[in-house]
Amino acid sequence: MCEANVYLAQDGRDEEVLVLEAVDQILPEGPGSWRLTSIFGEQKMINGQIRSMNLVDHRIVFETSAD
Amino acid sequence: MCEANVYLAQDGRDEEVLVLEAVDQILPEGPGSWRLTSIFGEQKMINGQIRSMNLVDHRIVFETSAD
Repeated sequence: MCEANVYLAQDGRDEEVLVLEAVDQILPEGPGSWRLTSIFGEQKMINGQIRSMNLVDHRIVFETSAD
Repeated sequence: MCEANVYLAQDGRDEEVLVLEAVDQILPEGPGSWRLTSIFGEQKMINGQIRSMNLVDHRIVFETSAD
């Protein structure tokens, strides 16, 4: 299975906090807002922008904006 | 390997054109600009915003803005 773990970092900081594991689907829901859905059907909303995606490492990092 | 195929659609249209296969890394490079890197090291730049990501299906779709 090719799901990814989604992390959130504060803008400009290195620390990344796990938001949801085993994410299958990521859909935008308005400016800077995203709906994550895991392979288990769990959903979470996240606000921010994408900092990096490394799919082979199963790793997607969002960051909150400084606004 | 958990790479994905990246597609680009024109804003508001359903047709999705393959941009790059077997993408490992996606990094933002300025507003609406992204650097894709495949597992083979091939790189492409893409302009647009994310429409949808379905990782289990290895499918990431960007769309160009209507601006």
